[in-house]
Order: sequence, then structure tokens, then C-alpha cells
Amino acid sequence: MPADLSTVLLIERHRGTLDKALEAVRTREFWSPYPEHPKAYADAEEGRAAFEALLGNRFDLDQPGTDEWTGGERSPYGIELGVEYPHPDPDVLLPAMRAGVAAWRDAGPEARAMVCLEILARINARTHQFAHAVMHTSGQAFTMAFQAGGPHAQDRGLEAVAYAYVEQIRVPENAEWIKPQGKRDPLSLRKTFTAVPRGIGLVIGCNTFPTWNGYPGLFASLATGNAVLVKPHPRAVLPLALTVSVAREVLAEAGYSPDLVCLAVDRPGEGLAKTLALRPEIGIIDYTGSTAFGDWLEANARQAQVFTEKAGVNTVVVDSTDDYRGMLSNLAFSLSLYSGQMCTTPQNLLIPRDGITTESGPRTYDEVVADLAAAVDGLLGDDARANALLGALVNPEVKERLDAAPGIGEVALASRAVAHPDFPDAVVRTPALVKLDGAKPDAEAAYMSECFGPVSFAVAVDSTADALELLRRTVREKGAMTVGGYTTSAEVERGLEEVCWEECAQLSLNLTGGVYVNQTAAFSDFHGSGGNPAANAALCDGAFVATRFRMVEVRRQA
Amino acid sequence: MPADLSTVLLIERHRGTLDKALEAVRTREFWSPYPEHPKAYADAEEGRAAFEALLGNRFDLDQPGTDEWTGGERSPYGIELGVEYPHPDPDVLLPAMRAGVAAWRDAGPEARAMVCLEILARINARTHQFAHAVMHTSGQAFTMAFQAGGPHAQDRGLEAVAYAYVEQIRVPENAEWIKPQGKRDPLSLRKTFTAVPRGIGLVIGCNTFPTWNGYPGLFASLATGNAVLVKPHPRAVLPLALTVSVAREVLAEAGYSPDLVCLAVDRPGEGLAKTLALRPEIGIIDYTGSTAFGDWLEANARQAQVFTEKAGVNTVVVDSTDDYRGMLSNLAFSLSLYSGQMCTTPQNLLIPRDGITTESGPRTYDEVVADLAAAVDGLLGDDARANALLGALVNPEVKERLDAAPGIGEVALASRAVAHPDFPDAVVRTPALVKLDGAKPDAEAAYMSECFGPVSFAVAVDSTADALELLRRTVREKGAMTVGGYTTSAEVERGLEEVCWEECAQLSLNLTGGVYVNQTAAFSDFHGSGGNPAANAALCDGAFVATRFRMVEVRRQA
Repeated sequence: MPADLSTVLLIERHRGTLDKALEAVRTREFWSPYPEHPKAYADAEEGRAAFEALLGNRFDLDQPGTDEWTGGERSPYGIELGVEYPHPDPDVLLPAMRAGVAAWRDAGPEARAMVCLEILARINARTHQFAHAVMHTSGQAFTMAFQAGGPHAQDRGLEAVAYAYVEQIRVPENAEWIKPQGKRDPLSLRKTFTAVPRGIGLVIGCNTFPTWNGYPGLFASLATGNAVLVKPHPRAVLPLALTVSVAREVLAEAGYSPDLVCLAVDRPGEGLAKTLALRPEIGIIDYTGSTAFGDWLEANARQAQVFTEKAGVNTVVVDSTDDYRGMLSNLAFSLSLYSGQMCTTPQNLLIPRDGITTESGPRTYDEVVADLAAAVDGLLGDDARANALLGALVNPEVKERLDAAPGIGEVALASRAVAHPDFPDAVVRTPALVKLDGAKPDAEAAYMSECFGPVSFAVAVDSTADALELLRRTVREKGAMTVGGYTTSAEVERGLEEVCWEECAQLSLNLTGGVYVNQTAAFSDFHGSGGNPAANAALCDGAFVATRFRMVEVRRQA
Repeated sequence: MPADLSTVLLIERHRGTLDKALEAVRTREFWSPYPEHPKAYADAEEGRAAFEALLGNRFDLDQPGTDEWTGGERSPYGIELGVEYPHPDPDVLLPAMRAGVAAWRDAGPEARAMVCLEILARINARTHQFAHAVMHTSGQAFTMAFQAGGPHAQDRGLEAVAYAYVEQIRVPENAEWIKPQGKRDPLSLRKTFTAVPRGIGLVIGCNTFPTWNGYPGLFASLATGNAVLVKPHPRAVLPLALTVSVAREVLAEAGYSPDLVCLAVDRPGEGLAKTLALRPEIGIIDYTGSTAFGDWLEANARQAQVFTEKAGVNTVVVDSTDDYRGMLSNLAFSLSLYSGQMCTTPQNLLIPRDGITTESGPRTYDEVVADLAAAVDGLLGDDARANALLGALVNPEVKERLDAAPGIGEVALASRAVAHPDFPDAVVRTPALVKLDGAKPDAEAAYMSECFGPVSFAVAVDSTADALELLRRTVREKGAMTVGGYTTSAEVERGLEEVCWEECAQLSLNLTGGVYVNQTAAFSDFHGSGGNPAANAALCDGAFVATRFRMVEVRRQA
């Protein structure tokens, strides 16, 4: 029986998009095939209805080895999702997944890329439904859930497919090797090269960005010939269950085993990720989450290639600016977006205690902090706008840290609760800004550890040189997903670059407009560097895909 | 003071070679810039004299942090080398090495590649000297020491430089990113991308192939901007000391710190590699040697990217052939070359106990084994030829294993001592071939572990299907650098391919001429796969270079 989706058809549909993606990662110019504006998608109401139809029901994926049903997601906006998902018996599920791998390997890099692009295209067509699912698991406001959870996540998935594809075709499928031997006949061999997968990739999802952080690993492993088992965060299953469902549908239509992509959901408190991570069938792990579990995976899942994104302490060095208002409004937005619940949100703002220079004269440390607090207040003064920017606190731990912030230091900007018009139980809070003296040991304990959520520290330092040294120490010891800097001095700029090159951190300089330090664009920006303690991998580069497969050569005498 | 070797000059000299190497790794066709025939090099006598001039002297590299002098190499051909090398104080040496890294990073990928090619060119010009150094540390016969230790090692070094270069230029140095915003002004960023090194790469050399196994890691790390500390095997220091000396000379002439490449030699019994491997300055480790220490490095040197080549059990499946004589002579050569002291030498020959089919009728298991023994005898019957093929046993442990071989099973071919005309103390031995019954548990203990040296096992199996299953189990549990197969059956061929794809091993089929299973050619063949227990890396692919550096992005508002 021929597959409904032939490779020829898929190439016709998607090869052009893949080629554009390959070109974009080479030039690093702006590009995306997936529109980011909700109005570009016709299915707003159908999407909402499709989301609502899932609630209170069993999400049956027709997977092998399901031994019970589990679930229990509660939206940060206060509603119970009531969806039940399959819990796996690994001894049945994992062998069933492996059974499809040989045919998937034999399909080759291009056919696999095309299937991945079809999966992404179908996910893209359902972006409204996904947006509601991301919103009601991560707590992101709708627009952010739509963009970051939809087209931006799809971009990152496509980027991973592009890298995976190009990595696999660096050697030809066949080669003739003819070595001259002087007057004797040449030596001659026919060689074939086959990209072979490691087995099964395990994707361990996070609570805040289930699709954005999940897609790179999922698509990189799948495109390199592996099966993929998705183990979502127990509070953010639905967006990844939808993803797995689409992937299984496309794989089956294209004539491959749908079990190449499966979902595994924890029983409450089970710690299923630990069990799965140590299984010999698991050859690759992609993880986003706490440093403690990321370090555990790196140390213990020795049979697998482990890619981790963990915690870090992101820093902005404020030295001087020629656009003071622009700097303040840019920083205010960065601190507010999704209530600071991004792994890229700045935490420590290092400001010289003698103040900074601006285009309209010097500003003292106290003035800068007060002006920033006022900028945040202004940005979030209107509740509708505040709700649209902040979203809801993703879980009670974030709220606990926010509530504890006044005990850490002098509060320059207090957090306030914002009422949500549609969801009275949503916990919506504006960010807190706390003043700390960088020279005081008790302050150091606070600013040298990650305080995930809407709490930032305005750290008074002796000088910009002092700030650069603290930045260096912070990145080296704690890691950083992002570093920001504001300066009008070429020397300070070079100093910031030197620290970021030596400690391996991604640097944004003098952002005063509509690009923020906590946002990266696929095909152009790297997310993380892979070279400091915050993450051992970057999205996306050759290193992210190169070890997910191996090249096996067969040579024959010609 | 301008450097004697400008980048412009080096580009003029070497860019063409780099481009040809890049083309070769894409096409996998035969190519090498370094002639392999000794007659292609004019310096035979000068090379020997230059080698002899080193003996009995201190090898002073003018390195910082040398706290004493150490050495004690004795040639497998029986002469004491009497060379003394620097022993480092890591607290002085490692910071001195790091001091040169920023300027080396700033040089960029192309300038670094050119410096590496100049180092290789100067090593190539001294191939005769290197050949004697390799011969008198590894025990290889002169021609092999010349070729494998000279041009073939240089090929592998150049291959690593080519991969490192291309990996670093996958993103542009600069990019303009302009994102349309409908009617508003577009968002616009200027971005720079810099390949930044991990710090210092540690190369831990082996006894048998100091240059061939050492150059890929050395040049891959250096070309990606790292400093490189070379810690040779205590019995095979001289070829790598010469290498370090050339590298330091070229670096200094090109205006970089010579301390970017340094040598560290153990005191007897010191275990310096362990100490160095755990230093925080070491970001990369390349290791060739025992499984025990390789596993230790992977488990403990967690601050570093660890690339290991360890032990494996190489297998040849003998099912059938249409060129029986060709098969026997090819196998006889493979077992004899360098007394089987290659990580790629076949150890287990799996032969159905009911025999095999050949172009001139069936041959029983006993006949095949006897015919192979006779082929080895014929190949090595002449002592001059035997000496030219076998070389000397590299160390007493190899001789002990060979002496123990008759206790393992029925000896089909006994080892004999060969007198060396020039070196009476050389321990030269022909290989032993031992018959084992694959079904017997006590035999399994022997054939399922590596017996490094000139001992091979003719393992009787129930059938070819049985052989394939044993092959699969051997590769999965013990690893393999090489797999060979002889068959006229398309089905068996596919079965061999399937096992090698699934267990990730490199397969040579039906070699009956002048290419041997234990030899690989740079730019075309992969050495190891990185996907089975014998090695976690392959020479050379994207994975071998991609994690040796990280890409740091600096973005500025445009």
C-alpha cells in the first residue's frame, strides 16, 4: 500500500522552505516562514474550540505499552484542564519505538527532513489551538503564547531540521576511491556512507516554554533518524501531547511507524524522567529545567548524549547611555515580559554607585533605579496592558520567591497584584526591583544565585571595571543565557566583549528599541552558548546535531 | 615588530591545499598532499642524522614552568634513546599557555588554519627524521613508521584542520538583521559572531601511533583557537616532542605565543595525565589507549569535552568467497602488519564449522584455518620481508600475551621469533593463530576480550547467521574499530550491513587486493564510528570538531 504522503509530494511541498532555512542560517539575516501575527491565521475561533474540546477528556494517542492514564494540569489562569494522558510501560513502549527505526534510517536525510517540515506545517496551521494550550500550561499571556509557543517555536524546530539535514549530507551517499599505484593497477574501492541514529531521543520538557524549548531537540533527533520519546513537564503536557499527535499522524501517512514519536507522562510524584533517562535504549537526552536535575543527567545518563539548558544568572552592565529613556523603557519591558519567567530575563543590573552618564547629564545610582522603577510602573500602569505583558505566575514556587523579595534588600519597586478580567483565579504580578550593595557579603548570596521569576536586583558596584569583574565571575560560576550592556565608551564595549568571549556568553549591546535582551530570533541568534554553566548546548549550531547520529561506511573492492 | 610569517604569505602558500582538503572531505575521493613514498623526500640521510643527533641529549623546548627533566625511552629495537624532556609545574605552565589564547582567538579561523598547515608542511619536510623517531618508539618497521607516522599522520592532521575551519565559518563574521514591522520602522541589529575556544586541549598520546593518533586532536583543538598541551605516552615521547618543537617555532614566527603548544612528560610512574585531565584550564581531552583509563577520563574529566579511542574486538565474518587466494593473502597481511599491534587489526575470524564455499568448491573450517596459517607462513617466510612487515613488539606486555596464546586453545599457527639484521635486541615475532569453538563458554572468555598484539582467534561458529549474531554482540558489548566480511551472498552482505548500521561499526567487504581492513585513508575513510564502545569519536567528522569551540554573538542596535 503506497503511503498517502510520498517523498516526492513532500519535496514538492517543502524543499523550497528547507533551502531558504539553510540559506538563512548561513547569512543570519532575518527570515521566518511562519507568520507571527495571530491575524495571519484564519482559525482563531476554531482553534479556541479545538482547545476547549480537549478539556476534561482522555488524550488517546493509540500508543503501545500504555499501562494507565494520568494527568492533572491546572492552568496558571485557574482552570483545571482535566486531560488524561498515557503513562508508559517502558519495557513495551521502548522496543515498539525501536522497531520503526531501521526504516526511518533507510529513508535518508532528505525524506526525514521533509516529514519533519510537514509536521511543522500542520502544527503551524493549528497555531491558535496550540496558543491556548501553551497559555493554559505556561501562564504566558495569549499573544506571547501564540508567538513564542507557535511560530517562534516552529522556527526553532525548522532551524534544527536544517542543521540536522546539512550535517548528514556533508559526506556523499556513495564515493569511488581510486588510489594510483605507479605502474601497477590503481587500488579502487566503492564506498557507501549511511547516517545511522543513536536509537531513541528523550525530550524532557519544561513548564514555561513546552514547545519553544522542546522542539529543537525533538526535531534534531527525529531528523537524524532517531525515534523520540517526549516526557513533558507534568504541568505543561498538553502542547507537547498535541505535538506528538501531529507527528504520529504525519509519520503514519508518510508510511513510517507512528511509534517513532511517543509521549510519556508521569504519575504524580513519580520522577519518570529519571527512570527513562537511564534506559539503554535512550541514546540522546534534551533537557530544559533546573541545574540540579540537569547536572544529574549529565553525570548519570552516561549512555546518552545529553543536551541541557539549566539555570543561570543573567546580568546587565549599565555604564552609560546616549538614549536614557530608550534604555529605561527597553529594560522595563525585559523585566516585565512574562513576569520575568524567561531563562533569558535579566536578573542583576550592575550600576556604578557613583552613577552613570547619559545624553542629558549624569544620573546617580539612586536616580537610575528610581527611573527604572518608574518606567516599569508606567509600562504596567494600565491593567489590560499589564495582563497582556505579564501573563500569570507559572507555579506557586515563583510566587513564593516574589513574596520573599522584600526580605532581601531595599525594595525600589514593589510588586503589585493585577486582576485578570477573564480569569479571577490567575495570579498576575508586576515585577519587583530590589536594591543591593554589591560589596556586602549577605547581598552577594542573593545576587549570585538564580531567583527565577519577577525579581531583579539593582546591584551597586564600585565602578564599571568592578561590574565587568563581577560579570565575569557570575558567568563563570553561575552561567548566563544572556548578558546585556549599556555604554557609550568604546573601551567599556571592548571590555564587555572580552568578558563575553572569554566566559562564553551571548551579549546584547545598547538595546533601546523594540528588540529585547531576553528574545532571540531563530536562524540568526544563538540561544545560549553551550560554553558556560547555564547550558551545555546552544540553539542551534553544528554541535547541537553532530553527535545525534554517526556515519557508518561500507567499503567494497571495486 | 612584524611577524616573519604574515597571514598573507601563509595564505599564498597554503590556501590552495586547504581548499583541496575541503573538496576531498566532501567527495571522499582519493587525495593527499603528502607523498607516501620515502623516495619522494630528498633528506633520507640528513633525516637519520638529525634523529641520531637527538639521542642522549636534553630536548629543550624553552617552555615556561619546567621544574625538572625526565625521560627514559628505550626503543623496541633495543637501543636507549636517552633523551630528556621537560616535566611541567602545571601551576606555571597552564597560565602561561592561556596567556596566548586571546590573540590566537582574535586571529580568526583562516589565519589559524594557515599556521596549522605551515606546521604540517614543516613536519612533512622532516618526515625522514620523524620516521626514525616513530620507528624507535612504536617498534614499527621503517617503511610503516615513515608512512603511517609521516604522511598518513599529516593527512589526518590536515583533515582535522579542514573540518575545524569549515565548522567555524558556517556563520558569517558579521550580519545585518532587519525585521519588517508593517508600517513602522523595521527592527534592525548588527551582529558579530566569534568562534571562541574552550581553553587548553590536552592530547594524551599512545605508544603505538604517537603522531597518527595524536595529530587529529592536536590540530583540531589548535585550529579552533585553543592552546594544546601534549602529554605523550612515556614510551613514545620523541615524535611528539619533535611535533611540539615545530609547532612552537611556527607559532613564534607567525607572531603568536609559542606557548600555545607545549609538551608535558611524566616522571616514571607519575600518572601525570590524571592530574592534568582534571585541571579546570583543560577544556578538551583527546585520548588514545586503554579502555580503563578512557572510561575514567569520560567519567571524571567532566569539565572537558573528552574524545576517546579505546579498545575493541575487531571481527571478520568469513561466509564465502569467489577469490579464495585473494582472501587468504589479504587476511594474512592484515594479521601480520605491525605484528597485529593496530587498534584496527582483526582479532576474531568467525568461520562456520561446516566450512565455506569458494570459487573452487567448499573448504572445511579446518582447511580454511590451515590455508590461512599457510598464507601467513608464506608471507613471512623470508626474514627480510618479515622484518619489513612485522616491526618489533612494542612492549613486554604484548610479548606476554603472545607467549600465553598456546594456553588459550589449539594453535593453528605458532608464533616464531625473527632475527633482525641491524638490531639484535629487537623482539620480532610472527603472529599466532588459535582455534576456538565459539559455542564453548571458556573459549568465549578469550574471544570476547581484546588480546592486543599478534594473536588472532579462528572461531568456529554454527552458521553465518550465528556469526552475525556473535558479531552484533561483540560490537555492542566490546566495541570494534573495524569489521570485515567475506561473502558472495547478497543476503549475507545485507545482514552484515544491517549489523554494522545498527551497532555502528565501519565495514570492509570482500577485500582481496592491496587495501586492508586495518587501514583507513584520511579525507575518505572514517577511523572508528564514535557509536560503539571502542571509541566515542570518529576521525574525522563534524562531531570531532564542533564542540571544541563555541560561537559568541554580540548584537548591537543598528
